[in-house]
Amino acid sequence: MSILRKNKIDFRLCAEDMPTKWYNFLPDLPKSLPPIRDNGHHSAQKISEQIRPKILLEQNNPKTQWVDIPTPVIDRLIQCGRPTPLRRAYGLEKYLDTPARIYFKREDTLTTGSFKLNTALAQAYYAKEEGRKILISETGAGQWGMSVALASQMFGLKARIFMAKCSLAQKPYRQHYMKMLGTEIYPSPSQKTNCGSRLLNRSPEHPGSIGTAISEAIESALETPDSAYLSGSNINHVHLHQTLLGLEVKKQLSLAGEESVNHLVACVSGGSNLCGFMMPFLKEKNEGLDIQMLGVESTAAPRLTKGTYEYCRSDVAGYTPEVLSYSMGKDYIPAPVHAGGLRNHNSSPLVSLLYKEGIINARALDEIKAFEAGRLMLQTEGILVAPESSHAVAAAIDLANDAKESGEERVIVFLASGNGFLDLQGYNEVLDL
Amino acid sequence: MSILRKNKIDFRLCAEDMPTKWYNFLPDLPKSLPPIRDNGHHSAQKISEQIRPKILLEQNNPKTQWVDIPTPVIDRLIQCGRPTPLRRAYGLEKYLDTPARIYFKREDTLTTGSFKLNTALAQAYYAKEEGRKILISETGAGQWGMSVALASQMFGLKARIFMAKCSLAQKPYRQHYMKMLGTEIYPSPSQKTNCGSRLLNRSPEHPGSIGTAISEAIESALETPDSAYLSGSNINHVHLHQTLLGLEVKKQLSLAGEESVNHLVACVSGGSNLCGFMMPFLKEKNEGLDIQMLGVESTAAPRLTKGTYEYCRSDVAGYTPEVLSYSMGKDYIPAPVHAGGLRNHNSSPLVSLLYKEGIINARALDEIKAFEAGRLMLQTEGILVAPESSHAVAAAIDLANDAKESGEERVIVFLASGNGFLDLQGYNEVLDL
Repeated sequence: MSILRKNKIDFRLCAEDMPTKWYNFLPDLPKSLPPIRDNGHHSAQKISEQIRPKILLEQNNPKTQWVDIPTPVIDRLIQCGRPTPLRRAYGLEKYLDTPARIYFKREDTLTTGSFKLNTALAQAYYAKEEGRKILISETGAGQWGMSVALASQMFGLKARIFMAKCSLAQKPYRQHYMKMLGTEIYPSPSQKTNCGSRLLNRSPEHPGSIGTAISEAIESALETPDSAYLSGSNINHVHLHQTLLGLEVKKQLSLAGEESVNHLVACVSGGSNLCGFMMPFLKEKNEGLDIQMLGVESTAAPRLTKGTYEYCRSDVAGYTPEVLSYSMGKDYIPAPVHAGGLRNHNSSPLVSLLYKEGIINARALDEIKAFEAGRLMLQTEGILVAPESSHAVAAAIDLANDAKESGEERVIVFLASGNGFLDLQGYNEVLDL
Repeated sequence: MSILRKNKIDFRLCAEDMPTKWYNFLPDLPKSLPPIRDNGHHSAQKISEQIRPKILLEQNNPKTQWVDIPTPVIDRLIQCGRPTPLRRAYGLEKYLDTPARIYFKREDTLTTGSFKLNTALAQAYYAKEEGRKILISETGAGQWGMSVALASQMFGLKARIFMAKCSLAQKPYRQHYMKMLGTEIYPSPSQKTNCGSRLLNRSPEHPGSIGTAISEAIESALETPDSAYLSGSNINHVHLHQTLLGLEVKKQLSLAGEESVNHLVACVSGGSNLCGFMMPFLKEKNEGLDIQMLGVESTAAPRLTKGTYEYCRSDVAGYTPEVLSYSMGKDYIPAPVHAGGLRNHNSSPLVSLLYKEGIINARALDEIKAFEAGRLMLQTEGILVAPESSHAVAAAIDLANDAKESGEERVIVFLASGNGFLDLQGYNEVLDL
């Protein structure tokens, strides 16, 4: 009988195996997160309290080690494909001829095609519980926007998304998807907000950025009654919601008979996929297990590997607080790589602390290397990952090659954070198909 | 505790539950399939024997009730996402306020995004076993082409695909996917074949069709040493390979605690998704169980509901035999609907016999009704299905509404044959988003 049939390739969990609590990893950190600076012309702290559901603010610093996931959130996560598979990458291993055992977590199988849905559903639920009627957010490449669109629909709420004008043109399919769910979409900068209007007056052809879109979304939330603003990354409650990833992977590695894991690999920007995946392993790492955590960024915005650890903010209008993070500087313009999720000018305070303290390592990879790894992943495993995820694939391949070099049986797990079907145009351009 | 968590919404099978044999349903038919007519200017029978692996010809009429699936095929099916989920459509049921219990089989979760992969992997394997080096086929909307591209790659073979010129322009993303897998792609009509050249000489702007693409693929297979021609539908061995669908659904309905099913619904063209899904239930239906089988076609090509039962062939050049089937006539030009998989001018002999004998019913639905059902499916279940599959959704909704009308607890299962991410442009145009 085939080894694959005996559950040795696809370590599936059933609905009843779905975690029912998120893991609060803050107690496992070596030190507290540095305080924010709230010296903009708005009070970022007050703004945050006004636009976000109260329980989400509490979840930025939970009082307990475990946080209950509300049942309606669990139900919808299951409807949308959780728990997601963990797959052994036999095809890739064979191609690389490596003694390493490579696994990958398939967040690409969620119905929106990315891991972002995990927190969108939770945030939408809490907003609804507080009586909010419309969810407002920004989106870069569009994966987060799609998740907000679906989550709002599933809880009977409306959604409004500001998407950088340049990305909207580059990724029309994601816009169609959001519109099918009744989401209002504004290309940022837009005339919908004062901040957007000012930018357009100054520069009518402004291409927009994630920074302009955040500012417009926050302003819109401040001015729209019964609205809530949702964040797709960067902030602690988002990282908390994403711990589902690591909690599931731990169960699945155990099903796979792996007693330990040597390398965890994920792409990194705000870092919610990385933190959600890796932080449930931090306690074991603290206890001395050899678990190496690697964040992979894009050379288009090499915040960790080439940035400066400094106070800066995420948006252009100054609605967000200044946070201590690795940054390229607030005026940095990244190259227009297709991995839109990796283009932010700064990282989150948490990821920055993890890097500063040596808990995670980081590498920056260029787009061609990443997309070539994405192609190899498709060719050997049959799975097309998102441009962001392809950075993790490329780094995992290098680790597997290192293992071959040293002849060691390393266990490598990487995160396939999203699906690449809607990025085929990008693959086509970069790989010159 | 949530009812969804206790495995009451997502009836997952593990790799070890994957069927290891296909089901030969031919003995369950009320009569034999009518003979082919082989009176073209080529001998279609001889051509078929030359271009197809021998074992596939045998599998058109297996000698046993069950046919072993080769282990390497099982392995790759598992790698690509089999067994696929069966989901209870609680969201849709609630929206419709129906007493019906609605389930759907998620072939959209296969890594190529459609059920076509099930037979592509089997055919590629047999071709490789016979020493063939290159797989040649045609594709309409591109789902079949993507599956051939991946299957050939997974067995270390090359692939060559002829795709109707008009579809190639309409669905560029599918072309990029195939190219990532190293597939040669020709817009049909092409200069690559005599048949294509003749068409181009006569009419340089010829938009191509599935009929031109089949002719070119067969000619190319006849003239390419060590090649094999693969069929995506219509022919018995394809229907056989797709019986995985029905076999898995039966196991899953049993997990769901359903003792019987009242309605099976699938879109239909050549009919491999319909037959693979429904034929494993035929024996029970013959024994008197109330299982109603419904095929849903497009009003753009209403072969079963408005066509004529007559001998005709599938390609323009006359390489395929004449078969007795419901047909719109070989010169019929369907409206350019986005459900490219439902545009063929005739149905398969098997589906035609099933309809003629009253085993399946049929309905034709227009594109707007289908796409509106697709949108409702996304809104209520979070899953975006392919345009073809949206026809099945629309018909299932009507059946659920009928059940509401009559107050009956009917069990409805429909097939989500494919994923709609790459068809978002079509949804956008038809729904005027």
